[in-house]
Amino acid sequence: MDEIRVFSPATVSNVACGFDILGFPLESVGDEMVVRKTKEKGIVITKIEGFDLPFDINKNVASVSAMALLDVAKPDFGFEIEIYKKIKPGSGIGSSGASATSSVYAINELLGRPFNKLQLTEFAMKGELISSNSEHADNIAPALFGGFTMVKSLNPLEVLQLPTLKDLFVVIIHPQIEIKTSESRGILPKMVSLSDATKQISDLGGLVHALHTSDYELLKKSLKDHLVEKHRSKLIPYFDELKSKSIAAGAIGCSISGSGPSVFALAKGKQMAINIELIFNSIFSKSNIDFTTYVSKISSDGVTTI
Amino acid sequence: MDEIRVFSPATVSNVACGFDILGFPLESVGDEMVVRKTKEKGIVITKIEGFDLPFDINKNVASVSAMALLDVAKPDFGFEIEIYKKIKPGSGIGSSGASATSSVYAINELLGRPFNKLQLTEFAMKGELISSNSEHADNIAPALFGGFTMVKSLNPLEVLQLPTLKDLFVVIIHPQIEIKTSESRGILPKMVSLSDATKQISDLGGLVHALHTSDYELLKKSLKDHLVEKHRSKLIPYFDELKSKSIAAGAIGCSISGSGPSVFALAKGKQMAINIELIFNSIFSKSNIDFTTYVSKISSDGVTTI
Repeated sequence: MDEIRVFSPATVSNVACGFDILGFPLESVGDEMVVRKTKEKGIVITKIEGFDLPFDINKNVASVSAMALLDVAKPDFGFEIEIYKKIKPGSGIGSSGASATSSVYAINELLGRPFNKLQLTEFAMKGELISSNSEHADNIAPALFGGFTMVKSLNPLEVLQLPTLKDLFVVIIHPQIEIKTSESRGILPKMVSLSDATKQISDLGGLVHALHTSDYELLKKSLKDHLVEKHRSKLIPYFDELKSKSIAAGAIGCSISGSGPSVFALAKGKQMAINIELIFNSIFSKSNIDFTTYVSKISSDGVTTI
Repeated sequence: MDEIRVFSPATVSNVACGFDILGFPLESVGDEMVVRKTKEKGIVITKIEGFDLPFDINKNVASVSAMALLDVAKPDFGFEIEIYKKIKPGSGIGSSGASATSSVYAINELLGRPFNKLQLTEFAMKGELISSNSEHADNIAPALFGGFTMVKSLNPLEVLQLPTLKDLFVVIIHPQIEIKTSESRGILPKMVSLSDATKQISDLGGLVHALHTSDYELLKKSLKDHLVEKHRSKLIPYFDELKSKSIAAGAIGCSISGSGPSVFALAKGKQMAINIELIFNSIFSKSNIDFTTYVSKISSDGVTTI
């Protein structure tokens, strides 16, 4: 095999009580990438469609993560990459994570799978680093492993694959405002109350148990964030209305995707998800802010060959 | 049935990362109680063996919880109670919880089980309240439900039954020192760092996943407390040594039981548990402090008729 085309999903990270540890990929929203073997060693980006991203291999997330892999694999040939970018950078649904993931996944396939998913996560984190200035696997791990994915620890890297409920859909609204990473990080509290921390711990326990026991009611009771959402949501217009109205309509829960500005809601079944998308639409339609909405099943696969 | 004899287990609460929410009962350590129907309405305590506890029904945990049940059930007869107390009060392994549990369980059986476990937990909490001055179900819920039990929320009361691994044993050392509840509470921090909270959340998630997947390695990586142990352990002599030596010898984890002074370690298999008991013994043998040790399988049943 000399060429491969892959789909790399958008991902929701910081899933409510799973702040900093829990994420999942979308089934029908994501980037595509074509990777092709070349005689010349190294990486070349030959095409970028969709968004304006750097061709400089030291500045593009996809090539930086690919080079981290090649530094270890040391093949005597190289790869050229075509990027079909569909996830808008800065949207909070794992755009850079998808880029970092697709290249290492594709090259690993072309090399005959010398690396496991945990190793691919490590490589992809090198790409994510240049995009976000922090080494994290919030989006990469769900994109690579599929389903509800917990990054239990970064050092050493430990990733847990949780069960995913079959009827679970996600609705996302991406209000096209810019939230600077520095602002979104700066607004996080350094200290939280022991009481709020205990609530969050209890909810995360409930969420993991709910996924193992297919208990939608418990999932609904558990999908809450007591630590971060109240701070970051101040940066997102209409957040409270998105949340209260979607939950009143039957959403399992609603919180911030990544560090925003996207907001996600979980729903049981596609029809409920479409209803909630309509609610999200109607709330933002009255504003002057451009926005995009997505409805997708939660993917149990993550990045795949297409 | 006019008379019943029940076994009510000792319990470990505040299980490491499960501070304030997670507990489990012991299979072979606990109180016994005989409860007998009487023509006279109300509750009488006719015998207390083992420890010096009040016969006054308004001051004894077992009768207070029983009366909470009778206030709702309103039978036209009453009950007399014989308490065979084996769990030392103030030990940190749920002595008052066992008292509160045994009476409501026994009376519910004699009445033909009008109440479910959640309702019995509510009644027993009324008894626990007079002992600890706080309404909590940390010990009661594990004693009633059996196995690893999470009190997800107190108001409304929500209890989750987690799976319990078959080979799991607990070793407990009870150093016979007194830690005042006020001191043990006062030493808790009001605020904790977001970073420590995130570690605890991640470990609790790992622990719940480990129980569902029978993953002892993950259980070992997850059985940690980043929020409370470092403060409360200062009140417990030799805590650091108990912990480091038991873990070096193969314990799955080691932390404070309840709010102390007892310390527990988890072990896979009985032989390992006995090895750890020897280690605990040898550490405290060099001190002037009286102590008791226990080894028990974790009970998947909780309170039972015997």
